[in-house]
Amino acid sequence: MYNLLKSGNITSVPGFFAGAVYAGIKTENNLDLAILYCETLCNVAAVFTTNQIKAAPVILSRKHLSNNMAQAIVVNSGCANACLAEQGLADATEMANLTAEKLSIKVEDVLVASTGLIGSPLPMNKIQSGIRDIAIDKDGGHQLAMAIMTTDNNPKEIAIEVNEGDFKYRIGGVTKGSGMIHPNMATMLCFISTDAVVDKDFLQIALNNAVANSFNLIDVDGDTSTNDSVFLLSSGSANNKCIDSASGKEFQNALNEVCIQLAKLMVHDAEGVTKFIEVTVKEAVSLADAQNAARAICSSSLVKTAAYGNDPNWGRILVAIGMTKIKLLESSIDIYIDDICVFKQGQPTAFDKEYLRVIMSNNEDLRIVVCLNVGAEEATAWGSDLSEEYVRINSAYST
Amino acid sequence: MYNLLKSGNITSVPGFFAGAVYAGIKTENNLDLAILYCETLCNVAAVFTTNQIKAAPVILSRKHLSNNMAQAIVVNSGCANACLAEQGLADATEMANLTAEKLSIKVEDVLVASTGLIGSPLPMNKIQSGIRDIAIDKDGGHQLAMAIMTTDNNPKEIAIEVNEGDFKYRIGGVTKGSGMIHPNMATMLCFISTDAVVDKDFLQIALNNAVANSFNLIDVDGDTSTNDSVFLLSSGSANNKCIDSASGKEFQNALNEVCIQLAKLMVHDAEGVTKFIEVTVKEAVSLADAQNAARAICSSSLVKTAAYGNDPNWGRILVAIGMTKIKLLESSIDIYIDDICVFKQGQPTAFDKEYLRVIMSNNEDLRIVVCLNVGAEEATAWGSDLSEEYVRINSAYST
Repeated sequence: MYNLLKSGNITSVPGFFAGAVYAGIKTENNLDLAILYCETLCNVAAVFTTNQIKAAPVILSRKHLSNNMAQAIVVNSGCANACLAEQGLADATEMANLTAEKLSIKVEDVLVASTGLIGSPLPMNKIQSGIRDIAIDKDGGHQLAMAIMTTDNNPKEIAIEVNEGDFKYRIGGVTKGSGMIHPNMATMLCFISTDAVVDKDFLQIALNNAVANSFNLIDVDGDTSTNDSVFLLSSGSANNKCIDSASGKEFQNALNEVCIQLAKLMVHDAEGVTKFIEVTVKEAVSLADAQNAARAICSSSLVKTAAYGNDPNWGRILVAIGMTKIKLLESSIDIYIDDICVFKQGQPTAFDKEYLRVIMSNNEDLRIVVCLNVGAEEATAWGSDLSEEYVRINSAYST
Repeated sequence: MYNLLKSGNITSVPGFFAGAVYAGIKTENNLDLAILYCETLCNVAAVFTTNQIKAAPVILSRKHLSNNMAQAIVVNSGCANACLAEQGLADATEMANLTAEKLSIKVEDVLVASTGLIGSPLPMNKIQSGIRDIAIDKDGGHQLAMAIMTTDNNPKEIAIEVNEGDFKYRIGGVTKGSGMIHPNMATMLCFISTDAVVDKDFLQIALNNAVANSFNLIDVDGDTSTNDSVFLLSSGSANNKCIDSASGKEFQNALNEVCIQLAKLMVHDAEGVTKFIEVTVKEAVSLADAQNAARAICSSSLVKTAAYGNDPNWGRILVAIGMTKIKLLESSIDIYIDDICVFKQGQPTAFDKEYLRVIMSNNEDLRIVVCLNVGAEEATAWGSDLSEEYVRINSAYST
């Protein structure tokens, strides 16, 4: 059983501190450099970008996680520190060194993350003075959430408290990302803190599961990035009986919830989004089939533009499913748009198109349900529509 | 050796006739129903959509091609005749029957194609009178090109004459498609005629190769359709020595040229396109790697929007390559945008960004060259940019 904490964030978890400054990396006068710190060394699980081109902070953080432990994260926005060869690695290493010195911890216990434009070197003089100026604080979580934003309109953060019989613990999370959002990660950073005592191996399994059920089921524009990183830090200060795969169901559910809520916040904040799309695929032969079909629908440019135009064009939904290799039978498929059945057992229904158009226009979200009627598995994916505003934002990003 | 025929089209090939009418399937008063006819029975090669959801005309044409022969194609625009279960198949069959009766040929020798909105039944009374009214003619090729257009702005057609020593033959082609254009076919129809005598097996091999090097290397918006069909009809009336895989190099080159030119016309005519993108990937380990990388770049929404905004954002090109599984080494990659080197051996160059922006703005096409420096294979793919206009067109297609 878990409860949402009001105004909760990554430092709502005991033992975690954060702080941020405007170091001058971004041109606008907004926070752009932050540190997350835990008073004890943490077990860490991590998931990184699947892109073959990996940014320097990703390469360095993977190295620092060879023992799966860390005590701090230093993160900047405004510059991705990617595709800069040796210079990029040297700069990421210096960010870690400066942070380790400031916090009097080992450099190997510092993780580094960067987000922003690819190919521009970090302004290291600004990073140096910025790291020096950061004041970490028990209430700094929200500042960190602000500091990692790029084209995000809103900070995205959450914290929950889990009660498991005799003991309780918290999970806090923060994320950024509003473009290049696609299954198998995106231009996203996500940091998650917990004071729960969790078995090291299970911590990674639980994070993999949570990512598969959240960040890998959202789509904005089909691109993944060089910098994607999800870090889950477990301090163990809650002193609960160690959670492992046998006892971990509650922890897994709570972690899924944190990741799903953060994933949905990312889609709601997607570049140029006017409509949030939720797609549920039911009665698939396998979970993988259900997920693939739901993702395919969310990823289709034609479904996205139809959503933007409040056009109940169910043919595009069928086309998107048909492009996958999932098991299907056209004559068994049912499709519902905003709860109205538009296609039944392989044939269009006589639905009132004008009425549905009005319903779609009035609804803030678009809800698509596809029943494949060939199995028993179900999955939900989330996506954004595709608007003229998306094009406007992305046609001049590097200016 | 081949020559382009001036104002050439599908009936520039001896023995082929065509005609079209406005039957009233489309709301606008434009040609929407056409017939292609050959005075002799042809050998036929065909490639169909890879989408699991196949429209009725695709299912019927596949059946009629069980002997790889045909003598006519009947085609309509304005209605895809897809996702309509038994009714769809019955209507496609009636189209074939009416055409066979009109031309006094066997119904099995009639191929059927439809393009337009999915899910609306064909207005069969209009189809009946339309087929009756069509007058086929030696100069009807251009009319057919007009009649298969949907959101296309321009008809797309070509014909070439091939001289192979002692004999000559012609190849004519027509295509439609301007949205849902993606690797592995698209919402596209393409009909190709030739009077060359070609071995039946080699005819299919040659078409597969030509499609792989043309239509499968273009991208507009990542969606494939239920109706994609490419038909290649060979009448054999040129009386040349039968072309087979041993002697077929010249024929293959000529067929590739026809398909590549038609594919490029499709991208130039893409919905909302303001800029044509040509991507060449060089020095890849394999041809498949080169093609995959070139396609990935053409398919990236972020590359497309950057192209639209004349933004030399090479980071997005790298990200698109990195999303593939091709063999690469970041430190070996060179990138050129409109012939200016922006990334060399894994590092950004000191190119003049403002100058390149001016060049990009002045150029009608965008040319991207990526040199992987890990092998000897090369491929080119073509795509469109992504504009606000694309979104506008596709947000209200079914209205």
